[in-house]
Amino acid sequence: MEMNGNEIKEMQKKYVLQSWSKQEGLNPIPIKEAEGIYYYDYDGNRYTDMASQLVNLNLGYGNKDIIEAIKKQAEEYCYIGPSVASKPRGELAKMIIDLLPDSFGKVFFTNAGADANENAIKIARMFTGRKKIFSRYRSYHGSSFGAGNLTGEPRRYPLEPGIPGFVKFFDPYIYREAIEFKSEEEACKFYLTKLREQLIYEGADNVAAIVMETITGSNGIIIPPKGYLPGVRKICDEFGILMICDEVMAGWCRTGKMFAFENFDVIPDIVTFAKGVTCGYVQLGGVAVSKKIAEYFDKNLLSCGLTYSGHPLACAAGVACVNYYKKADILGNVEKQGKVLGEKLEELKEKHPCLGDVRYIGLFSCVELVKDKKTKEPLVAYGKDPNGIMGKVIGLLKERKFMTYSHENMIFICPPLIITKEQLEEELEKLDEVLTIVDEKFI
Amino acid sequence: MEMNGNEIKEMQKKYVLQSWSKQEGLNPIPIKEAEGIYYYDYDGNRYTDMASQLVNLNLGYGNKDIIEAIKKQAEEYCYIGPSVASKPRGELAKMIIDLLPDSFGKVFFTNAGADANENAIKIARMFTGRKKIFSRYRSYHGSSFGAGNLTGEPRRYPLEPGIPGFVKFFDPYIYREAIEFKSEEEACKFYLTKLREQLIYEGADNVAAIVMETITGSNGIIIPPKGYLPGVRKICDEFGILMICDEVMAGWCRTGKMFAFENFDVIPDIVTFAKGVTCGYVQLGGVAVSKKIAEYFDKNLLSCGLTYSGHPLACAAGVACVNYYKKADILGNVEKQGKVLGEKLEELKEKHPCLGDVRYIGLFSCVELVKDKKTKEPLVAYGKDPNGIMGKVIGLLKERKFMTYSHENMIFICPPLIITKEQLEEELEKLDEVLTIVDEKFI
Ligand SMILES: Cc1ncc(COP(=O)(O)O)c(C=O)c1O
Ligand SMILES: Cc1ncc(COP(=O)(O)O)c(C=O)c1O
Repeated sequence: MEMNGNEIKEMQKKYVLQSWSKQEGLNPIPIKEAEGIYYYDYDGNRYTDMASQLVNLNLGYGNKDIIEAIKKQAEEYCYIGPSVASKPRGELAKMIIDLLPDSFGKVFFTNAGADANENAIKIARMFTGRKKIFSRYRSYHGSSFGAGNLTGEPRRYPLEPGIPGFVKFFDPYIYREAIEFKSEEEACKFYLTKLREQLIYEGADNVAAIVMETITGSNGIIIPPKGYLPGVRKICDEFGILMICDEVMAGWCRTGKMFAFENFDVIPDIVTFAKGVTCGYVQLGGVAVSKKIAEYFDKNLLSCGLTYSGHPLACAAGVACVNYYKKADILGNVEKQGKVLGEKLEELKEKHPCLGDVRYIGLFSCVELVKDKKTKEPLVAYGKDPNGIMGKVIGLLKERKFMTYSHENMIFICPPLIITKEQLEEELEKLDEVLTIVDEKFI
Repeated sequence: MEMNGNEIKEMQKKYVLQSWSKQEGLNPIPIKEAEGIYYYDYDGNRYTDMASQLVNLNLGYGNKDIIEAIKKQAEEYCYIGPSVASKPRGELAKMIIDLLPDSFGKVFFTNAGADANENAIKIARMFTGRKKIFSRYRSYHGSSFGAGNLTGEPRRYPLEPGIPGFVKFFDPYIYREAIEFKSEEEACKFYLTKLREQLIYEGADNVAAIVMETITGSNGIIIPPKGYLPGVRKICDEFGILMICDEVMAGWCRTGKMFAFENFDVIPDIVTFAKGVTCGYVQLGGVAVSKKIAEYFDKNLLSCGLTYSGHPLACAAGVACVNYYKKADILGNVEKQGKVLGEKLEELKEKHPCLGDVRYIGLFSCVELVKDKKTKEPLVAYGKDPNGIMGKVIGLLKERKFMTYSHENMIFICPPLIITKEQLEEELEKLDEVLTIVDEKFI
């Protein structure tokens, strides 16, 4: 059926419910094609994807290796059940385990990030025999009941009353902490002491796992201070609690390391992943567990399952994708362009009164808009933006074809990891321009 | 990397955690290729898939239309985010809404069955403003926390203590009911009266939705008596409760209708689907909602979302798959072969002392093994099979390359819907043979 862009847009509006939205007034751009860091509508307009869609398209659009792998696997067979041995499934699991520290043993595959986290907490409960799960307020782990109850922000509200035994603690959000710290060490000490105290008051022996985004992603690229994650690891060891790092967004080269936890000199017991493992070319997620946990399930029932666990087409895409990260030295490019990005963000922070904080690691970054640098008063209050100011700021970027999204008073800059210096500089010029407008009109 | 069958098997055993299993002693068959209703290992052995894998491969393996659609979409773009308009996404949503009754309005896409149910109950809670959810004991709705709490059998135990407000009731399992009914009408009256009573005692005004597999699938193809579903519909209307039909397994031609509820003269408010919509070639699930529900979200936030909602590659596979159902008159074949299957199953029930009950509709069927037809004592007690008897029975079928699975004392016969009369008869011969062995050795 041939259709023009407008018909495609209208069809989607008429028949599809769109995530996290009131449906009235949605105006989705109809996409015709996409290549590299750009996508194009039916009128030939070019858009730069500065958020890698939902921070999953690490290799951008049109990656030939992944596409070929999908086509090849589709010719052999697309799907076979989890209880049958399939080459791409075993191959990808092996590649992932080989990339992780020696202590890791096996992978349980899922379809996406939410179900990776769902299964991680089930596994932690089965392995430890304990029920309570700790996670953090400023976090997003998915929107299904289990993952959504891990989630610490408004996207979990429709799932309440929550699941018994899910407990929240605060993450190290130094920029907006109620007290000022003299050093990273002092901050670490504060957060770790409070966490340990809360664990004790919840009954640390009842806690199966602490689940954290290694680096908080969609709640604002909150990078833990040096020493924080090793400190959490120590507390976990003290009480026999499993440390689960959610690497759904931060994993797969995004931060300049294959996995984000490698930045912090720490080894978790369980790593959940999705997004970058296939860049979303085919949906895939998973749970990588330590050898110790894997061995437990030799003799104990793994009471986890889904129809599409280890989907062959998805795993074939994953094999090609992970190979491409290595072959194209994506980590090398992230290091180079991450430096360009960081320097430019610092420069913008100097220049613009509306830029309160800039946080970045690799090509994972966000900027925080404020009314006043001194008081740090955010451009919009938490959970409240009655005049749609952030929408207007994002709109100004979109007018310039700089496509990204916001969360509260923050704007994300997370381009595909294949971006070149020239491309990055071209786009950051647009950001600079828009921030000048914010300085002048919004604060 | 070239590997032989044994290496592929060993790689999977070493690195992959397999669903619903103790990992020790697993012996997954390595699959090289697949076509129609058959798959093949690396030694050239041919296996007949009599369960459509997990009752998802309705069109069997190697469907050229779906494969071509995947390859074509992969060349255009594999993925774009949910907030952008994508042709296959809108197209598939429109096709699904066109297949459903006029009262249906929009589709929210997910990756699979569990997350379809997760989102259905979230939507029901948001729309009604109520919290409680009713579902049935003998049911499987997925293994994530929300879907798993809907689930009424042991696969939900690791998720307990459950989510507050999830309430279970009993389904119309007439063959094993504590009392004997004189007629289907009497049975209906009993089950509906009990359901209404339970709703009143739970506070019917607090109940957002009743979630049912239209026909209970993996818990034993329990087909509701005539009048039951319309009766539930009436109760829902009385109390303003939404009726959610889980058509993940029963939908997409499996029962001889496009959707299973069409067999029962009833129209639900929400239908969840997965499996057959793409046959699993690419993972896809979704929630179809009534126009009334869809309109509610024009002005109210739809607080549901996932990275891969409306995945373009999956939707492209779905468009091709749904078109194929129509083009190849799959419903016609299900009607014909369903008749063959039903007659043969009745014949086997006459013949074999071990066959307590046979239940079938379309190509959706199971047989229940008993020690004694009169007492109906099951071949293995519920949740207990210390001597692995059912494993042995399934093993006898597997020796004959009749591949399926069991649940408690039941064996499933749910072949791909493209099966021919000759193929079906050939396979049912094997079942006959194995039942003779069960008669002689196991009861
Ligand atoms: C850190 C993190 N975990 C989990 C998820 C959920 O992943 P999915 O949307 O694939 O369910 C996300 C999605 O953005 C995420 O950022
Ligand atoms: C009726 C029903 N609902 C939901 C599910 C869960 O689907 P998935 O395994 O894709 O999460 C299944 C899976 O077998 C099912 O049979």
